[in-house]
Amino acid sequence: MIRINIIGSGNMAWFLADSFAKTDVSISGICSRNKEQGQLLADACNANFVNDVAGLDDNADISFIALRDDAIALVVNQLKTTSIVAHCSGMLSMDALSAHKDRAVFYPLQTITKNDLPNASHIPICLEASNTETLRIVESLADKISHHVHFINSEQRQYYHLAAVMVNNFTNHLYVLADDLLTKQNLSFDLLKPLISETARKACISKPLNNQTGPAKRDDRNTIKKHLNLLNQNKELKELYEKITQSIFKLHQQDEI
Amino acid sequence: MIRINIIGSGNMAWFLADSFAKTDVSISGICSRNKEQGQLLADACNANFVNDVAGLDDNADISFIALRDDAIALVVNQLKTTSIVAHCSGMLSMDALSAHKDRAVFYPLQTITKNDLPNASHIPICLEASNTETLRIVESLADKISHHVHFINSEQRQYYHLAAVMVNNFTNHLYVLADDLLTKQNLSFDLLKPLISETARKACISKPLNNQTGPAKRDDRNTIKKHLNLLNQNKELKELYEKITQSIFKLHQQDEI
Repeated sequence: MIRINIIGSGNMAWFLADSFAKTDVSISGICSRNKEQGQLLADACNANFVNDVAGLDDNADISFIALRDDAIALVVNQLKTTSIVAHCSGMLSMDALSAHKDRAVFYPLQTITKNDLPNASHIPICLEASNTETLRIVESLADKISHHVHFINSEQRQYYHLAAVMVNNFTNHLYVLADDLLTKQNLSFDLLKPLISETARKACISKPLNNQTGPAKRDDRNTIKKHLNLLNQNKELKELYEKITQSIFKLHQQDEI
Repeated sequence: MIRINIIGSGNMAWFLADSFAKTDVSISGICSRNKEQGQLLADACNANFVNDVAGLDDNADISFIALRDDAIALVVNQLKTTSIVAHCSGMLSMDALSAHKDRAVFYPLQTITKNDLPNASHIPICLEASNTETLRIVESLADKISHHVHFINSEQRQYYHLAAVMVNNFTNHLYVLADDLLTKQNLSFDLLKPLISETARKACISKPLNNQTGPAKRDDRNTIKKHLNLLNQNKELKELYEKITQSIFKLHQQDEI
């Protein structure tokens, strides 16, 4: 039986604990500076809670560092284990763990919030390891929770993380701005929900370039002008509208030349 | 039995024909300048095809103008019917039909492509009419195809259209740019699909503001700097990244003050 430690008690730590608790993997210890959240997570997955990495079981097969990038560096040097150390960051190079001979990256490409944990089985897990035996072990772990395991090096992973920010953070920000725009007019964001779902569905079944519609693509300046007029009291959104509209226009203008 | 005419043979015309063909509404005529597409659509819904609005059945209860905004104005003046005339535009005021006493707007808030027609039942239909009796008739038509019928005036509809452009056109453009970014690195857009689906799913069940994550929200300048470095060869996307990042940052900075 593989035994793991999880360092952290945030969204990623909850996701790992929740996912592995459904398998034959044993969660040995949870370590967190946040005693309340750490204890809660440890209770939820029948693990020991410790407040300091020095208290973690040295015999665990792998320690997952599920912390923010800047916190990972601090913890790495405190970890005295000789077994595998893995981080779950999209942007941090595997080299950040170079104090450990057997090191790995275990990066689930998904937006994760602990109050609404996603099912891991459809989530791409991006793996990288410092040697073949370490890779074999992290792969066997990833296979236990997901059907979509990929070998991705640190540079490739950075591009996936950047693309993920674009399709999640940026897209969600557009939802936020649309919600705000409608709310100020006493209109309901609910009416946009079927459109939001359909937009995502289409991107998953056909190339996004072929799904593009709208005034910017067809250079419908009359509609764009009307939209900008509606945004006269909203300088911030107006500038963003202009910037994205220009970007769509340029891309599709290039297509036609 | 209600009888309708449809003017146009583009995405919206196909959507209306497909949706009403499943009800007890009779599609009397299809009118299009595009003979090939118009005939194809007429054949698909057992309607007569005409190439000129003068050839349409004057006794139909309602004529839907499913054309681009700039083409609607041209057709309005050629239509000699005394029954209801409705357009399907998001931005055009109902006044554009003022040559007709019984006029209406019938605007399905959805992205529609004729090769992959959406099921109308979950699509919000935004209605407006020049008088009570006209509204009653267009409402009874909308009820036949959708469970989500809303009374929305021309000004409100413009805000919905603008918000729709943001959550569909702009969002899809981000998918296009992410696809392009990954393709240039020989990486696969497929890995983003679970994230795209989850981002949309979350927006439909909880307030987008509460779903926001990522480097811009938490002011993680180190990650933002790394992302911008990856975009050094892509001036257009780099500027767009900076603009959206600033917008997210400002919004969430305001929250914390």
